[in-house]
Amino acid sequence: VSRTNLSMSISADGYVAGPGQCEEQPLGVGGGALHGWHMGPAANHPVNRQVVSDMMDGMGATIMGRNMFGPIRGEWDGSDWKGWWGDEPPYHCPVFVLTHYPHDPIEMQGGTSFHFVTDGIESAYAQAEEASGGRDISIAGGASCARQAITAGLVDEIDLQISPVILGSGERLFDGFDAGKPALELVRVLEAPGVAHLRYRVLR
Amino acid sequence: VSRTNLSMSISADGYVAGPGQCEEQPLGVGGGALHGWHMGPAANHPVNRQVVSDMMDGMGATIMGRNMFGPIRGEWDGSDWKGWWGDEPPYHCPVFVLTHYPHDPIEMQGGTSFHFVTDGIESAYAQAEEASGGRDISIAGGASCARQAITAGLVDEIDLQISPVILGSGERLFDGFDAGKPALELVRVLEAPGVAHLRYRVLR
Repeated sequence: VSRTNLSMSISADGYVAGPGQCEEQPLGVGGGALHGWHMGPAANHPVNRQVVSDMMDGMGATIMGRNMFGPIRGEWDGSDWKGWWGDEPPYHCPVFVLTHYPHDPIEMQGGTSFHFVTDGIESAYAQAEEASGGRDISIAGGASCARQAITAGLVDEIDLQISPVILGSGERLFDGFDAGKPALELVRVLEAPGVAHLRYRVLR
Repeated sequence: VSRTNLSMSISADGYVAGPGQCEEQPLGVGGGALHGWHMGPAANHPVNRQVVSDMMDGMGATIMGRNMFGPIRGEWDGSDWKGWWGDEPPYHCPVFVLTHYPHDPIEMQGGTSFHFVTDGIESAYAQAEEASGGRDISIAGGASCARQAITAGLVDEIDLQISPVILGSGERLFDGFDAGKPALELVRVLEAPGVAHLRYRVLR
């Protein structure tokens, strides 16, 4: 049975991005500090490597929001933007990007392709499932995409990497949920230098 | 050197109490679920016992907000309310209660006494320090008291007990802070059944 994993780096006060996201600050002001655990000196810590592997390796498809794909808002306007990740993105599978604006698919090196979905998270998930060949599906973020996937009941496990950072404003992952929804079970707690890794299983 | 410890039970979405706090629901709707770790079947788990000990044992003084002391709002009006904890509260030290309404001190059994402070957190802290005899000070909550103590720079360590619960609304601990304030260091991550214990050290 395949699983759908949502994995996000989050601040001590619950934000997954700071305010003012733009091309120069894709994670918003201060948001970069949430990613030190896998981009800083402790990136090779075995716990951090495990957590990265859990969200990246062996995925059959990935779903992300448009703001995670790039800084462009509104119409694409012929932009040749191909994501933040260079010629060979680390996904190595079809990536379905939620957007309100149609865009032709983009083939990248290393097995990654970007597909643009304009009719919502359920449709993106159906296409991801179809493309995944029965393998796992990753919900990559950002906050809005993650909330939509959780609310639609598509997520099996939520991995949070909590950094000791106060962002104070920006986008919170858990915002606008009703009490008890989703129902969660804490199934894993791991520590690496400067980060706490929590895994919740979503109960159905 | 004594430490000032803030210890709170918190939901996965960052709330320390649910909405609608009252005498029947002192922790608000759903808030009781945050306290299963020390009131439920796992209360005797050695990790949970350690965390309770860290917040309760050997304290020279405790500071709490008025809503944590009781459900009464506004004037005391001759109320004989003596806290939620019966004749022998678990504090065993002077407890300073933040309130806007004067109230005579209350002596309880077992060394606990309640003192009502109407001139703010700094004054409460000064009185707590004086009373503590050099021992540690506990900030017991709730959210507003905790935020005031953090903002005033009085807290040395923040212990959070994170339960896999979505409350969706209520009082968040980390609300209204500026980016980077407080500056935190993650110094301890512990796991017990159904709860993740994180300790942050506040950097000065």
